[in-house]
Amino acid sequence: MTTIRKGTRDDLPAVHALVRELAIYEKAEHEFIATLEDYYADYEAGIFQTIVAEREGEVIGMALYYMTYSTWKGRMLYLEDFVVRESYRRQGIGQLIFDAYLAEAQALGCQLTKWQVLDWNRPAVRFYEKQSATIEKEWWNGKISFQS
Amino acid sequence: MTTIRKGTRDDLPAVHALVRELAIYEKAEHEFIATLEDYYADYEAGIFQTIVAEREGEVIGMALYYMTYSTWKGRMLYLEDFVVRESYRRQGIGQLIFDAYLAEAQALGCQLTKWQVLDWNRPAVRFYEKQSATIEKEWWNGKISFQS
Repeated sequence: MTTIRKGTRDDLPAVHALVRELAIYEKAEHEFIATLEDYYADYEAGIFQTIVAEREGEVIGMALYYMTYSTWKGRMLYLEDFVVRESYRRQGIGQLIFDAYLAEAQALGCQLTKWQVLDWNRPAVRFYEKQSATIEKEWWNGKISFQS
Repeated sequence: MTTIRKGTRDDLPAVHALVRELAIYEKAEHEFIATLEDYYADYEAGIFQTIVAEREGEVIGMALYYMTYSTWKGRMLYLEDFVVRESYRRQGIGQLIFDAYLAEAQALGCQLTKWQVLDWNRPAVRFYEKQSATIEKEWWNGKISFQS
């Protein structure tokens, strides 16, 4: 029995652990420097929200998202991170989370939702194609870090 | 004399017009459906902020941005749109806006800032390279629209 629900502050330790698991999968654990204390502070500041999948009291998957804005379309929910613990994959849990996420986006009055996927992550790309998502390949990301 | 300042509600008509100009440049005016009324409502809901460049009472450039979250790094300011009216380009106005934007990101406690650029937009890519930005080419965008 898997429960899909809005995440709370109490879920942040599990969310933080799942982000670490995804960072390892994306070969970038050394890039993961935000602490659990950062998550608590920024969650309380209203900067992000989560949806979690829970089984027998354990969080086994999550979507982390926030409101953004498309200057062309209007309100846009952004899916920053989306992960199911590896041993629970291929059971449809990701689909349950994603469906709840899309419902949340529409409940928040969004015109669209957006996210990113690494070009070599074939299972993820296939999942999104199955959702009839548009996959755009012509945009590059720019970024500047302020960390010393 | 160019003034760089935080944008207000009164600047939204000019901001909306500049977004249209950028959409035309990106060959996508038909994709631009958010109305000025949407901008008023969503600005008042706190979903986005702007920095504008003003000369002789006219807004000639702007950056539109909002707070997002990097699960790896923490608070991340996102630059959604950034445009200088075509007849005012190559005068350093974009640099003034971008510098003010970076200062705003740091004032808001952000660890980094991120944005996107179309792979064929060479002048924009060159500008960002000059800022010592990292340009990532391995991420694809996924999106789902809820519009009927």
